[in-house]
Amino acid sequence: MSYSTSRLIAAAACLAAGLMASTAELRAQATGYPTAEESDPNALGWMEGFPPPPELRITNPDSVFFSFPRLRWSVCHLREFLPTEQVSRGLGAPIPFEYALDDGIDAVTFRPLRGEIEEMTWEESLAANYTDGMLILHEGRIVYERYFGCLDEAGQHAAMSMTKSFTGTLAEILVAEGTLDDTALVRDIIPELEISAFGSATVRQVMDMTTAFEFSEDYGDPNAAIWVYNAAASPFPRSADYSGPNGYFEFLQTVGPDPEGIRHGDEFHYRTPNSDVLGWIISRVSGMEVTELLSERIWSRMGAEQDAYMTVDGVGTPFAGGGLSAGLRDLGRFGQMMLNGGEWHGEQLVPAAAVESIRGGGGLEEFAAAGYADLAGGSYRGQWWIFNNAHGAFAARGVHGQTIYIDPTADMVIVRFSSFPIAFNSRIDPTSLPAYQAVAEYLMAQ
Amino acid sequence: MSYSTSRLIAAAACLAAGLMASTAELRAQATGYPTAEESDPNALGWMEGFPPPPELRITNPDSVFFSFPRLRWSVCHLREFLPTEQVSRGLGAPIPFEYALDDGIDAVTFRPLRGEIEEMTWEESLAANYTDGMLILHEGRIVYERYFGCLDEAGQHAAMSMTKSFTGTLAEILVAEGTLDDTALVRDIIPELEISAFGSATVRQVMDMTTAFEFSEDYGDPNAAIWVYNAAASPFPRSADYSGPNGYFEFLQTVGPDPEGIRHGDEFHYRTPNSDVLGWIISRVSGMEVTELLSERIWSRMGAEQDAYMTVDGVGTPFAGGGLSAGLRDLGRFGQMMLNGGEWHGEQLVPAAAVESIRGGGGLEEFAAAGYADLAGGSYRGQWWIFNNAHGAFAARGVHGQTIYIDPTADMVIVRFSSFPIAFNSRIDPTSLPAYQAVAEYLMAQ
Repeated sequence: MSYSTSRLIAAAACLAAGLMASTAELRAQATGYPTAEESDPNALGWMEGFPPPPELRITNPDSVFFSFPRLRWSVCHLREFLPTEQVSRGLGAPIPFEYALDDGIDAVTFRPLRGEIEEMTWEESLAANYTDGMLILHEGRIVYERYFGCLDEAGQHAAMSMTKSFTGTLAEILVAEGTLDDTALVRDIIPELEISAFGSATVRQVMDMTTAFEFSEDYGDPNAAIWVYNAAASPFPRSADYSGPNGYFEFLQTVGPDPEGIRHGDEFHYRTPNSDVLGWIISRVSGMEVTELLSERIWSRMGAEQDAYMTVDGVGTPFAGGGLSAGLRDLGRFGQMMLNGGEWHGEQLVPAAAVESIRGGGGLEEFAAAGYADLAGGSYRGQWWIFNNAHGAFAARGVHGQTIYIDPTADMVIVRFSSFPIAFNSRIDPTSLPAYQAVAEYLMAQ
Repeated sequence: MSYSTSRLIAAAACLAAGLMASTAELRAQATGYPTAEESDPNALGWMEGFPPPPELRITNPDSVFFSFPRLRWSVCHLREFLPTEQVSRGLGAPIPFEYALDDGIDAVTFRPLRGEIEEMTWEESLAANYTDGMLILHEGRIVYERYFGCLDEAGQHAAMSMTKSFTGTLAEILVAEGTLDDTALVRDIIPELEISAFGSATVRQVMDMTTAFEFSEDYGDPNAAIWVYNAAASPFPRSADYSGPNGYFEFLQTVGPDPEGIRHGDEFHYRTPNSDVLGWIISRVSGMEVTELLSERIWSRMGAEQDAYMTVDGVGTPFAGGGLSAGLRDLGRFGQMMLNGGEWHGEQLVPAAAVESIRGGGGLEEFAAAGYADLAGGSYRGQWWIFNNAHGAFAARGVHGQTIYIDPTADMVIVRFSSFPIAFNSRIDPTSLPAYQAVAEYLMAQ
């Protein structure tokens, strides 16, 4: 049996796993890992040489290529390990950003959450968060742009679970256009899921991750659902004795009801298979793969500089829960379009109602049940994180520190690619969320 | 042991294999396969549905995805089966072609070589050759452009062995610039090949495929070199009992001398490992992977509309002998630049001396020894085919009918992507080479 994508899948799930860290662990500042500088993939020389010597090679499976510090190279090179599908930017000329660089941002200070550190500068936070790419847009113009590690302006970086927000936005588009009824039951759209716990959920419950289903992430149990999911997702030729599900969609059919009697709608649970169900719904309703619809509706219309791509399973299904890789500025285009209420250079790419649905947020009580300390008072809607803070910020978030952070009050979008050594956002948020707020306030004061 | 890329590798070798067809077979017109219309991948519905039903699925390994008629879909989707590396077009605006469409071309007639058919129209030849994309440039403008089957203007198609001509052009650039000495012995550049038959060949012999080495393509013999090569090239995780070479470069070190005493320089033998050696030489000398150098020198400077990509082995080495996929018009840009003596929109992308080296051709006697009936009088130079015909035409050629055919006399470039059911160019040339000549003469008369 091949667990070839286990680390990617597990990583996609780990925004939730952060919850499971102890309070003591949450308070710790040191990760115990080499620093960003020490683990710089350029300094370590990964994959240099023809051929690279064995000690510098990074290869399949992902237990190798997605282990730290190798992952600091691999996050920019996923297509070199895995089959992928293109998200075409089309064939036209890119629409360039205007620049209004602000060299005061590096000196902006903030107080990290919880820890001993009283003050940190924005510039210091870049290394603290193992940042690979950082883009700040203010009033639609680039005020800050940095590349580190494996990334440059012409590279693509793994978006990880930010992929979910693209999938969710596509679903919100279809809902706003009336093509998809978010009150419908999943089984009425995907009859193959009649037998699965997902069948009795509404589309909205899937979109907002308030579904209830059995999904063990007990990595020590070889029969745990996370392993079945991982094996199903493998794009590699299978051994003759493999008898498990083949691909995301077959896996979803095997998912049973919540063993503790939690019902759909009761609680928010951040779990990646919801996004795969949503990808299936989108494709069934639109007649297009997620990659195709993402290209047709967004990527080919936003003046993107680069194609994006998504990893696929063994039957060609894109990983709607975590498979996207893309360029930093292209995610900036997307974030700015969302900030603009779906409008981009005179065209309404996403219906205003779809953006409003996301920004309006999901159920507060359901979200509170999940117990995210750093996101208290927030919610989750259409596969986006809604902070419900004073600035009305909302974000796409991916494990290892990825974000598209949209602050409508400050007219600011922050895009970060990063490769933090551990997969707990509860370790990354303390030096991120207050930093974003501090830069927002700085920019508003200019 | 995984033979996962066996069909791709075998296909890359089959321009030579055509020689082995009997005279009777060469004279036959019917392939015994479904026609282009009958095997149209759109009509057959490959990979349609979410998920595609089992009978419409195309999956790994390539014994499935690269078998006819599935290959008619797969030639546009290699990245969905295999790990790949980007050949970046850069981030700027594409340089569009001018159009001067000529609707008289479809009615141009020619007489196919050898067969019973006395006259065929250009339009008829498209289906006869299972054409997926056809572009004709005349005086630098697009006069003809068609897409069929899996391809459209925004798609990428497998270039197959046309890849070799890109690899060869990069080598000719380095030779012309003085960075690479084509009289040097391979072992003096790649010490790892001291132990291989390639070590004692000159760089030029590798470039022109006049090397001598043992390379059995006896597919019935599991120890034949072609199988060792195939297994080495596999990008997938290996079984624990695999003990063969890992990657193209390790394979090349195992290649022994010609068992019949043929010496380097004696004869032209079209064999793909030469191109892998050349890829290694290019990378060692330039410090860049073939993908990087191809992007830096050509793809990012020719106003390409699309990124290209190359398949890679399990240690990240691009397949320099056959791994490229690209858009139709982008190959047109490359072909036109070569026709222009290396100049493209005011910039000299390829030194004029490099283009002259290629157009000057290779050894006639060495080529004649290989016995290509339809290419009699021709030669092979810098991984390009030189026809030595009245028009001075030269070409990149790939199995299943791919070509970039450059006719300097007619100021014409033809680019064809196709998915002919069998891998013998000797079956495809009879309805191709006289057709190209007829269109050239037609355009010269306009």
